Amino acid sequence: MTDILKLQERLREFAQLRDWEQFHSPKNLSMALIVEAGELAEHFQWLTQDESFNLADEKRLAVDEELADIFVYLVRLADQLDIDLSEAVERKIALNEVKYPADMVRGSAKKYNEY
Amino acid sequence: MTDILKLQERLREFAQLRDWEQFHSPKNLSMALIVEAGELAEHFQWLTQDESFNLADEKRLAVDEELADIFVYLVRLADQLDIDLSEAVERKIALNEVKYPADMVRGSAKKYNEY
Amino acid sequence: MTDILKLQERLREFAQLRDWEQFHSPKNLSMALIVEAGELAEHFQWLTQDESFNLADEKRLAVDEELADIFVYLVRLADQLDIDLSEAVERKIALNEVKYPADMVRGSAKKYNEY
Amino acid sequence: MTDILKLQERLREFAQLRDWEQFHSPKNLSMALIVEAGELAEHFQWLTQDESFNLADEKRLAVDEELADIFVYLVRLADQLDIDLSEAVERKIALNEVKYPADMVRGSAKKYNEY
Repeated sequence: MTDILKLQERLREFAQLRDWEQFHSPKNLSMALIVEAGELAEHFQWLTQDESFNLADEKRLAVDEELADIFVYLVRLADQLDIDLSEAVERKIALNEVKYPADMVRGSAKKYNEY
Repeated sequence: MTDILKLQERLREFAQLRDWEQFHSPKNLSMALIVEAGELAEHFQWLTQDESFNLADEKRLAVDEELADIFVYLVRLADQLDIDLSEAVERKIALNEVKYPADMVRGSAKKYNEY
Repeated sequence: MTDILKLQERLREFAQLRDWEQFHSPKNLSMALIVEAGELAEHFQWLTQDESFNLADEKRLAVDEELADIFVYLVRLADQLDIDLSEAVERKIALNEVKYPADMVRGSAKKYNEY
Repeated sequence: MTDILKLQERLREFAQLRDWEQFHSPKNLSMALIVEAGELAEHFQWLTQDESFNLADEKRLAVDEELADIFVYLVRLADQLDIDLSEAVERKIALNEVKYPADMVRGSAKKYNEY
């Protein structure tokens, strides 16, 4: 996923041009990310699960924007910590394949309902 | 960024093979995402901003995994809502270019310190 | 609610005795609070709304502890910012009485389902 | 802390009068609480730790309101789960006294900086 690296560069440049890198410590970015995740969750908090699939147009547009905000901070954070997001997600998928073999967890959904 | 679409397909297939799509309503996924964002923030909560740049190896590895978890739920959410993440981020960057012209906000950092 | 003030004093003393006040800036405490809120939400993320009323004993105990953690950080934050939590909640209730008159919002639930 | 029980009753009545109890499942309330925690964190995300102690009047007022919102949802959640918040916090303090004896953790702050 080289495109994520390109996005990373564009967002870094965007911050540099505005002299905003001084605010983008990993600590601050982790706060900004969860703040955006809260704005996302706000759209769903009183909805039923069914309703959450069928958003009104205005709400859908707002959710679209929250997803983008989270993506932006996620990429900025990876950049500031020199973490390769594509590799991280590949490692995680490989880990999950081992942890949750389809044949063993299918149907039972134990992973989700118990702990 | 066609690669995100490929990742989206892989993650959808992963969920389908385990019969986990039933849990992946946008409402639930928005909760899962913020829960992971909380686990990320936990690593930084007592650090100074300087310290947050220089993580110990073990912590760095854990942060790497949290970023992947957030990315996974972000992509799953976009998939379940039929939102194109790449387009969403392009729209957002274009919007931010207009909202925060570099010449006007540089240095002052007003965007960040006031509201 | 004078008891909250007593709790506030006990928690302050607890932090002072351990020389932990240096970590308890409002910024850090706001992070710690949302991290605990994430741990709370984790217990509910894959449950249906009905299931969320009837927790297994072990989960109930864990939720009990998360509520306490959130309460602790809420009270510490109020203390560090010199905010009277009891007065704040009184102001908020009075505000909500005006904003959402029972006769006008009852049943329609508009406040919750639209925006 | 009997006063918290009184507050609990008032907030329950407030919800009942508006027919809002239908929305107040523990799952939904845990989302509402973290959404408010996000709004709280937003006020601190770009501040230094020192700045976070000295809020401008307008910001201070907004923070005051966020603390109240979190408190309200915390109390509603305890009520819906039949958890006694005062007892929960007492148990937690007793637990922390054992886990972090002042003589052993003082100064070192290990609890906060490592894991």
